[in-house]
Amino acid sequence: MSRFIRELYKDFKSYTPGEQPKDRKYLKLNTNESPFPPAPAVYQAMRDADMEQMRLYPDPTGRKLKVKMAELYEVQPENVFLSNGSDDILNFAFMAWNDTNDSIVIPDVTYSFYEVVARLHEINYEIKPLRDDLTLDLEGYIGIDKNIVLPNPNAPTGIALTRTQIEELVRSNPDNVVIIDEAYAGFGAESAIPLTRKYDNLLVVQTFSKSRSFAGGRLGFAIGDAALIEDLTKMQYSTNPYAVNAMSLILAEAAVDAEDYYQENLQRIIEARDYAADKLNALGFEVLPSQANFLYMKLDGFGGRELYEKLKERGVLVRHFAKPRIDDYIRVTIGTKEQMDELVEVIKAVLGDK
Amino acid sequence: MSRFIRELYKDFKSYTPGEQPKDRKYLKLNTNESPFPPAPAVYQAMRDADMEQMRLYPDPTGRKLKVKMAELYEVQPENVFLSNGSDDILNFAFMAWNDTNDSIVIPDVTYSFYEVVARLHEINYEIKPLRDDLTLDLEGYIGIDKNIVLPNPNAPTGIALTRTQIEELVRSNPDNVVIIDEAYAGFGAESAIPLTRKYDNLLVVQTFSKSRSFAGGRLGFAIGDAALIEDLTKMQYSTNPYAVNAMSLILAEAAVDAEDYYQENLQRIIEARDYAADKLNALGFEVLPSQANFLYMKLDGFGGRELYEKLKERGVLVRHFAKPRIDDYIRVTIGTKEQMDELVEVIKAVLGDK
Repeated sequence: MSRFIRELYKDFKSYTPGEQPKDRKYLKLNTNESPFPPAPAVYQAMRDADMEQMRLYPDPTGRKLKVKMAELYEVQPENVFLSNGSDDILNFAFMAWNDTNDSIVIPDVTYSFYEVVARLHEINYEIKPLRDDLTLDLEGYIGIDKNIVLPNPNAPTGIALTRTQIEELVRSNPDNVVIIDEAYAGFGAESAIPLTRKYDNLLVVQTFSKSRSFAGGRLGFAIGDAALIEDLTKMQYSTNPYAVNAMSLILAEAAVDAEDYYQENLQRIIEARDYAADKLNALGFEVLPSQANFLYMKLDGFGGRELYEKLKERGVLVRHFAKPRIDDYIRVTIGTKEQMDELVEVIKAVLGDK
Repeated sequence: MSRFIRELYKDFKSYTPGEQPKDRKYLKLNTNESPFPPAPAVYQAMRDADMEQMRLYPDPTGRKLKVKMAELYEVQPENVFLSNGSDDILNFAFMAWNDTNDSIVIPDVTYSFYEVVARLHEINYEIKPLRDDLTLDLEGYIGIDKNIVLPNPNAPTGIALTRTQIEELVRSNPDNVVIIDEAYAGFGAESAIPLTRKYDNLLVVQTFSKSRSFAGGRLGFAIGDAALIEDLTKMQYSTNPYAVNAMSLILAEAAVDAEDYYQENLQRIIEARDYAADKLNALGFEVLPSQANFLYMKLDGFGGRELYEKLKERGVLVRHFAKPRIDDYIRVTIGTKEQMDELVEVIKAVLGDK
């Protein structure tokens, strides 16, 4: 920290990205990446790409990709927003709609980035606890007249709301924006995208990172009423007018066209998740019901940090959040079925050591 | 604009990126891109890249690229910051160091993005006029005890300060951060990077967009004291932890290794600039002395908008800023010598029509 830093940021704790260690090869189940590569058509698009075009700025409107995505999601291109990953979009969303007198409601157990962004921009926020079983207390969000941000499924629990439940939130808070963060869309939860055609106060944020095996390509998108998209564009043009990489725009077009390939992978991940959950339950883990590409779980007699460390020693990288209420849990990304078998074997060895 | 937008942003005018028209093919001299393609080694790096890795998040620290860049610029890796274009970095810099009671000084004729960012974050700023000849009044910046942002060379004038002049600014404002935006480094102006080894209050921002023909790749970097870099990292991790595209990190490494190729291109652009300036002077233009890859100029009897429009009609795209003091000027990107000949011919035709 420099001696020039703003007073506000002197004790500021920023978000910590998951570790990307280079010291040894791990079975990497810590940052919810897909175990499958991008679609063959994406490889081909890269081979075909005209590298000379990299000398030019990308189209800041991303028009061609928006047209394709609008078709897939049955909205209009002006309902689609693109940016450099979905965190980038969440940041804009926090900036755009939270006035000095407003506040935004954030669950206590959720993606920790939200609170960081709220504090960064001095936005009033209210932390609302999940119930004891780590499910969301839906009633607590009905008609509260506050902005709301929720991941669906929630992270790191993996527990999802139904589209009908989301609709209740959106309808009952008509003068506030509800941001549904669908970073883990495609793994079983219902998407709220169809509701964006009906409600002007709903923004759905998704990403190519997980469901489209494209975390390296940094492409997030949001779908919502055209006026909300205009607001986000205003924030984007005022902080980083050319936010999306030219190559990513091209590769993403190919990825959207390869929808079937990705849908098949999503099915394989869902199967591997349910398979792994059964095995882990059998080993005594309490595994939360997940509709994401990860499992959140704990085991009597073990701390979360302890499990994380013992697995890391044996070459399996998972994620542990040292926070009240969830300190005992670890979050494990779903890989292939073979990787899940490997995980189970390593866990058996850890249990055998105790 | 939505009905939910923050009061602060109701009448907010965001930055307008230069047009990227698709309706016809233009001689595109409007957004200061390089006329030369990326280095052959960058093409090769793309062909060799392991597409499977795109399923993984990029290294958020960009360590490998930082090591290479530190070597080239004779600093340490902890003095290097990477992000998704240099605008992204400028945004972080505005956020990090401007306290409620501080203010940052911005020239009146400069890159209009600075004022947008300051207003976006409600940062106090002071607009300081250039002299009548559009040169910077250096005395006005000495010992002012305020944060300062200056492009060097300035945009859109192209006029540069010397390193000695920059040092005076930095040394005389020891308790404030001086941000030198070297987006147009390499075209003749002296870089302030060597001064970052001596002063802890200087941040130099550069980009791969222009001098390394990589505007599509979105890679900006900053060099400064390690503590300043930590501050920027805090802002980045709190808004977009994985800011730089995985592919761009790889291609940029190849670009840094191909330094000779880019240096040769810079020389060719400098030659084409001086060649074009002579021709345009001969046609009666008043051309400001440029150390950038563009010329800023006006012609008696023509408005800037008029010149812009007449050139566009004839297939040449340049940039006009409709602002006080500079409304008569147009900014023209330097292309190849052949493109400059084409420009001169088109201008002759425009003059002939009058």
